[in-house]
Amino acid sequence: MNLILLYTSDFIDPHLVRIGDRRFQHMRSVHQAAVGETFKVGVLNGLIGQGRVTAMTDDWIELRIRLNQAPPPPLPLSLVMALPRPKMLKRTLETLATLGVKDLWLINSYRVDKSYWSTPILRPEKTLEHLLLGLEQAGDTRLPRVHLRKRFKPFVEDELPAIARHTRALVAHPYQAAPCPAPSAAPTTLAIGPEGGFIPYEVEKLQAAGLDPIHLGPRILRVETAVPVLLSRLFPLTF
Amino acid sequence: MNLILLYTSDFIDPHLVRIGDRRFQHMRSVHQAAVGETFKVGVLNGLIGQGRVTAMTDDWIELRIRLNQAPPPPLPLSLVMALPRPKMLKRTLETLATLGVKDLWLINSYRVDKSYWSTPILRPEKTLEHLLLGLEQAGDTRLPRVHLRKRFKPFVEDELPAIARHTRALVAHPYQAAPCPAPSAAPTTLAIGPEGGFIPYEVEKLQAAGLDPIHLGPRILRVETAVPVLLSRLFPLTF
Repeated sequence: MNLILLYTSDFIDPHLVRIGDRRFQHMRSVHQAAVGETFKVGVLNGLIGQGRVTAMTDDWIELRIRLNQAPPPPLPLSLVMALPRPKMLKRTLETLATLGVKDLWLINSYRVDKSYWSTPILRPEKTLEHLLLGLEQAGDTRLPRVHLRKRFKPFVEDELPAIARHTRALVAHPYQAAPCPAPSAAPTTLAIGPEGGFIPYEVEKLQAAGLDPIHLGPRILRVETAVPVLLSRLFPLTF
Repeated sequence: MNLILLYTSDFIDPHLVRIGDRRFQHMRSVHQAAVGETFKVGVLNGLIGQGRVTAMTDDWIELRIRLNQAPPPPLPLSLVMALPRPKMLKRTLETLATLGVKDLWLINSYRVDKSYWSTPILRPEKTLEHLLLGLEQAGDTRLPRVHLRKRFKPFVEDELPAIARHTRALVAHPYQAAPCPAPSAAPTTLAIGPEGGFIPYEVEKLQAAGLDPIHLGPRILRVETAVPVLLSRLFPLTF
């Protein structure tokens, strides 16, 4: 937790917050918070700044807040990802949020096991939990939007072309593909397949929606490794 | 498992292997192996090729092997990493092996919890298991060498200068650092700190050993995310 994320409900006056949940436990046990110390704070979807501890009991901590800084810039990216298996989904949601992804479409694909769609991690409150962990890690405040699309074809035919239009539109696919392009700040749409990849029919559909296949070299990466690798190669360091 | 890794002990004649362990279970249950099918295979620390299933019982599978290809090129990198906590170590070993790291120094640091050094994952047979999983994922055969250094100062003073000499020598450190340099195939030494970073004394020591601090932009990354991000930024796609 490199930043204490604050919610509107934490504020007891415009510059004072009172926190009593997981964040308080963490500040107390991991950071040994004490009156007078300062922490990096940020308001969900808002500014970043400092919070100075003004009071602490066994149940809550109070911080006086000064917000004066924008959160790190978001990646100019729409990420379309075949739903990974639950364990990987959890970590991937955190990683995505840490790396600055703000728009995530989780889609179906032939190689996505049907059971993955019933994982509790897709419940909005659980998804939110993992995204918040990722933001707290990065020191970011802007919450990613997660869109679930349980049917491949309607999404790729009816929604994806509009998402991809006027963007650098790519699908990570190891076959008949160009090398991953150079870093650029251009708005980008990127599709990442499931373990085992998209099937040829799906790649055709994605190409018809305007996405060009790119590959990442001779090594085959797990989804949770492919995501940071792709984002590092596609965008400059300033993000 | 994108490649079946073969060991000398699997060979029953120069072109025939018989396998009865985890790899056989995986080929049978996940890939539904059958006589006549071919699999991508590779000999540990050797060539890559194809194996055609010639026989299968309930206990083992036999493949006729043709090896004709070099494994993917290794990263020209000596990676020095503060020992991560066990759960992260496990995944990081796999990721490193997948990404082509061949020389890993796991070192102590002020913020490495002493208990981490007694994790079973550091037992050679357990470390090996995770490295092999990483190689099988990538389609690589060359086993990384892992060196354990439980004392920071002797390693950094006595060994690191020779490792770093004539290489692009870097330490990932968010403060007073230059931006991560452009991709290059140059031999590289890279040090990555623990969660919370190296302490100033350690950074000074690493700098005295010839390492220059670099940063990765405004976001703070977990070690397991920082590794693929750093390697993707430091090396060209051909690796």
